[in-house]
Amino acid sequence: MKYPLTISNLIECYKKLPGIGEKTAERLALATLKLDSESINLFSKSIIDSKIKIKKCKICNNLCEGELCEICKDLTRNKKIICVVEDSKNIISFEKIGTYKGQYHVLNGLISPLDGISPDDIELKTLLDRIDKEKIEEIILALKPSIEGETTILYISKILNGLPIKITKIAHGIPMGADMEYVDLMTLETALDNRTEIA
Amino acid sequence: MKYPLTISNLIECYKKLPGIGEKTAERLALATLKLDSESINLFSKSIIDSKIKIKKCKICNNLCEGELCEICKDLTRNKKIICVVEDSKNIISFEKIGTYKGQYHVLNGLISPLDGISPDDIELKTLLDRIDKEKIEEIILALKPSIEGETTILYISKILNGLPIKITKIAHGIPMGADMEYVDLMTLETALDNRTEIA
Repeated sequence: MKYPLTISNLIECYKKLPGIGEKTAERLALATLKLDSESINLFSKSIIDSKIKIKKCKICNNLCEGELCEICKDLTRNKKIICVVEDSKNIISFEKIGTYKGQYHVLNGLISPLDGISPDDIELKTLLDRIDKEKIEEIILALKPSIEGETTILYISKILNGLPIKITKIAHGIPMGADMEYVDLMTLETALDNRTEIA
Repeated sequence: MKYPLTISNLIECYKKLPGIGEKTAERLALATLKLDSESINLFSKSIIDSKIKIKKCKICNNLCEGELCEICKDLTRNKKIICVVEDSKNIISFEKIGTYKGQYHVLNGLISPLDGISPDDIELKTLLDRIDKEKIEEIILALKPSIEGETTILYISKILNGLPIKITKIAHGIPMGADMEYVDLMTLETALDNRTEIA
């Protein structure tokens, strides 16, 4: 005796998602049975739509429905500054702050020789094309402070070296509200190196 | 800037499932985008089917596609013994053992006066009808050892009191392989009370 086919299928589908094991998939599948018809229809339709409607923005690679994302379509935003991020979801975080009014560029990955990811495997060429065509004045590198992040930052800054563009990277240091004694030593060292003058 | 509509819808749908918060829903939605077309179609179809095809077995309330579940349809199983469980998924566990060859009855809940769940809110009447019609010889109460479980066991055994039916409940005690020093006191007390003679 196993579950009816529909339920086993549903369990298998949930198991394909990251962090979902056998037990959790079973729990989610049984919970799905209890959703109301409206939710069921929306859920089913959204999954299909995610394959059909969601595309990458032709300019910045952000996820969007249609040709261009909301940010690239927005004419009030500063077209001369690009914030370079690894993934679309980083854009959501920056937009939640609400103060940055420039463009974005999603790399969809970071250079990682160990994993066989070379500069050609991420959206670097499209970034260089944009810098060239759109007469960009500043590039903000908002990549994570890891070996891959630093490698990518180094690579981009070397390529752009000599061009009349300001290249910056976001500050790494002690996170706001952190308890000093629990901050790891590498962060502490970075924070010390990047100290800023206050008077 | 928020996610495109399809992605926000998908996030909302995942958030309706138990144990899935905002961050996890976001992660699952973005992972859904990366599934291949075949998985997407199966996932979407299974969700719809879960509402359309999955029904409760007319005899035992187990989840099934069609009128009767596989167990009730199986003529080789003992029709004179019913194992009473709270939920369909308990059946899967018992079937994994593979030694029990009787019938089941899913209560779809336990009596819980505090939560306003009375005997009429769970599938007790259908159980009593079966006992009457199918000339059942033994009822095994396989309900969880909680206040609700014990209340339900007490209620069922009182109702069936006087009828020529053997009523049993599964053993509660130390789980196999448990480290004695970590067993909670209530389990230890139960295990002591329910000790069995070995010689």
